[in-house]
Amino acid sequence: MEIYNNKDEYENDVKGRSFLPKGFKAGVVSLTFFPKEKKVDKPFPMNLSLILLDKKTDSFAGVFTKNSFPGHPIVHGRGVLGSEFVQGVLINNKISNVRCPGGLDTIDKILTGFSTEFGVDKNYMFSSSTGIIGWRLPEKEILEAVEKLPNVMQSETIFPVAKAIMTTDNFPKVRSVNIGEGRIVGIAKGAGMIEPNMATMLLFILTDIKIGREDLRPLFKRVIDKTFNRISIDSDQSTSDTGLIFSSNLVDGVSLPEFEKGLLEICSDLSEDVVRNGEGTAHVIEVKVKGVLNQKDGLLIGKAIVNAPLLKAAIYGNDPNLGRLLQAIGDVTGSEGINIDPDNITLKMGDFTLYEKGAFVLNEELELQLFSYLKERAFNEKSIGYPEHRNNVKIVVDLHSGQEEVTVFGSDLSYEYVRENADYRS
Amino acid sequence: MEIYNNKDEYENDVKGRSFLPKGFKAGVVSLTFFPKEKKVDKPFPMNLSLILLDKKTDSFAGVFTKNSFPGHPIVHGRGVLGSEFVQGVLINNKISNVRCPGGLDTIDKILTGFSTEFGVDKNYMFSSSTGIIGWRLPEKEILEAVEKLPNVMQSETIFPVAKAIMTTDNFPKVRSVNIGEGRIVGIAKGAGMIEPNMATMLLFILTDIKIGREDLRPLFKRVIDKTFNRISIDSDQSTSDTGLIFSSNLVDGVSLPEFEKGLLEICSDLSEDVVRNGEGTAHVIEVKVKGVLNQKDGLLIGKAIVNAPLLKAAIYGNDPNLGRLLQAIGDVTGSEGINIDPDNITLKMGDFTLYEKGAFVLNEELELQLFSYLKERAFNEKSIGYPEHRNNVKIVVDLHSGQEEVTVFGSDLSYEYVRENADYRS
Repeated sequence: MEIYNNKDEYENDVKGRSFLPKGFKAGVVSLTFFPKEKKVDKPFPMNLSLILLDKKTDSFAGVFTKNSFPGHPIVHGRGVLGSEFVQGVLINNKISNVRCPGGLDTIDKILTGFSTEFGVDKNYMFSSSTGIIGWRLPEKEILEAVEKLPNVMQSETIFPVAKAIMTTDNFPKVRSVNIGEGRIVGIAKGAGMIEPNMATMLLFILTDIKIGREDLRPLFKRVIDKTFNRISIDSDQSTSDTGLIFSSNLVDGVSLPEFEKGLLEICSDLSEDVVRNGEGTAHVIEVKVKGVLNQKDGLLIGKAIVNAPLLKAAIYGNDPNLGRLLQAIGDVTGSEGINIDPDNITLKMGDFTLYEKGAFVLNEELELQLFSYLKERAFNEKSIGYPEHRNNVKIVVDLHSGQEEVTVFGSDLSYEYVRENADYRS
Repeated sequence: MEIYNNKDEYENDVKGRSFLPKGFKAGVVSLTFFPKEKKVDKPFPMNLSLILLDKKTDSFAGVFTKNSFPGHPIVHGRGVLGSEFVQGVLINNKISNVRCPGGLDTIDKILTGFSTEFGVDKNYMFSSSTGIIGWRLPEKEILEAVEKLPNVMQSETIFPVAKAIMTTDNFPKVRSVNIGEGRIVGIAKGAGMIEPNMATMLLFILTDIKIGREDLRPLFKRVIDKTFNRISIDSDQSTSDTGLIFSSNLVDGVSLPEFEKGLLEICSDLSEDVVRNGEGTAHVIEVKVKGVLNQKDGLLIGKAIVNAPLLKAAIYGNDPNLGRLLQAIGDVTGSEGINIDPDNITLKMGDFTLYEKGAFVLNEELELQLFSYLKERAFNEKSIGYPEHRNNVKIVVDLHSGQEEVTVFGSDLSYEYVRENADYRS
């Protein structure tokens, strides 16, 4: 478990993981603008970030949301995925460029400006946006910022970009591994609207390890399915969820299994970071569904638990109201026709058995122990420190009906979540 | 729209609807107890209610939750449904008698005591419980209360029972209709944990209109599907959801269609009352999904909208953050494989068009109008009065792809919801 006493201590550690792999540059320019859709007293701030390879590459892959109203950057990006080469991604926060008038034209104009400035083919670039849905990007202000980007590009660290892509995130999320002479570094943002498929709104992974596109694409999808597609904060799948990976192919000699292991580690850690950083999250809930017939059923049950509002609110209050756990399992299995034997399942929280042989095992002493267990795992307690910890609330559901096992992560439901989301745009 | 200035005014109106049909008696006894599962400083209060027919009847029907962990009263009640006759139901609040040790034995002991006291066959009685899951009913205290029940039985009004079955409900819910010489009266409780199938935790309907069991059972199911199965507060389907209907068969001459119309009216109104009384509800959200291919898709889309936490939190804050509406529709249709044409759907809130021809139609003026629209429909505003109103936030989704139409009701997500559910048991 990693414990930090304050934000600076945490950020220093994160900076230590942020060094760019060989062959990449990154930079950020801040701008302000007045939205056309809402009267505001002062201009809104926005960050424009650029991740750029020194040379175009054919080793890249992407995964996008399955939402029926994908943002313009997703529609555009699906086209770029078919390109022979790419060279990077231009990213803004604050407005997501989704279902506003003329959003694809806006992307084209911005990338044309970028191309003029950097001499890079506009067809080799992804565009990525996160923030408010339905509003138009401030084209003019972004194009002005593009002109300033060349002055801030550097090949040292991804950290400024990890900070710049944040919206309601509390802290920047960076994970990295070194494998032999090579390196993989990943950044993510996501807070609220977090659910598969593609559980973070934005994920960017850079590596210098040589890997062919035909290997990278299925491998990236496998890793995402095991990590970002198993987390949930509020059961919403965003219109903008995007994951991109690029290799500069500069480092030879790392095997595919080694690469996959490293990427899995990064994505596991980043996806947990995203939950931990959910809007107003006080507890991270880690649900292990054991003894289930197949992965699909396990995922449905695990998701139902981490998405049950009554249970989430109880855990927020350190209230071991475990009937709500049973209720959530019973609801999804009843509705989805998943066969379970209520007399032969076991429920645990931490090391405490709550339910076995068809009935709850509750008493005064256990109630107090569970209260303490939850309290010790709350973010807002001083004892936990800032903000990254692994002290999850662990729930185990054993159905005793199969051999499969699925772990799902989610967050509690706090006053802060409601407050943030009741006035996100103000 | 019905507006009340205060609780007394509202309750007086409700009392006016509460007269019992012919052939029924009702009564309530309050008791206190110390739970075995949690150390408490002072005893918990509980109400024991009895609805009893003067004579046994074979005209009755029931619908129960599909949750895989049904409460002991549900398991018991499914048996009673097969009985030739029944004569009533004994109801307690505070503990739901779900998955605690020995729960079926407890029901048997309590009904045996009841039978001794009232001379009614114990096999003719339903048992119904709502409240905390996993705890045991206080057998001894309930049996003592049963002995006091004969003194309080009366044939005037169901109002005391409507109040006694409340848990976190803010106000009693009673609806009635007179048809010819006959009468139907229904009461419901439900706040939190409200979702189909069987959207209220407890629903009891009494009538003196003559109707055969073979007609009543499918008719009751049809009505429930159109009403209680179309509301949602927090997407949880409880372990205890129960709907029972009894006829004393004393009034002849009402046709089946007249009866069904009356019952539909009662269940529509009660199911809306239940949403309006959701834990911490500030806005009631009424979603009409039009132009959809079939009822199932319409229901899925409507439910997804009223269950989207980000949208619910925005509506609570009177924030017309409509991207979240689009996001919710896109999420469910993408995940469930429901084919829609993003360029050919229309979204409206009230009379305002938000989205058409593939893009949002947003501007400063509309934003202000929508803010006012939401603000005027908030419960916590003085202008609305106490508590029953029909001033719902109306959302219309027109898919332009079929002829079907489905209306779904839900509530917003408020601080109060989280607060109530973070410490429901304390």
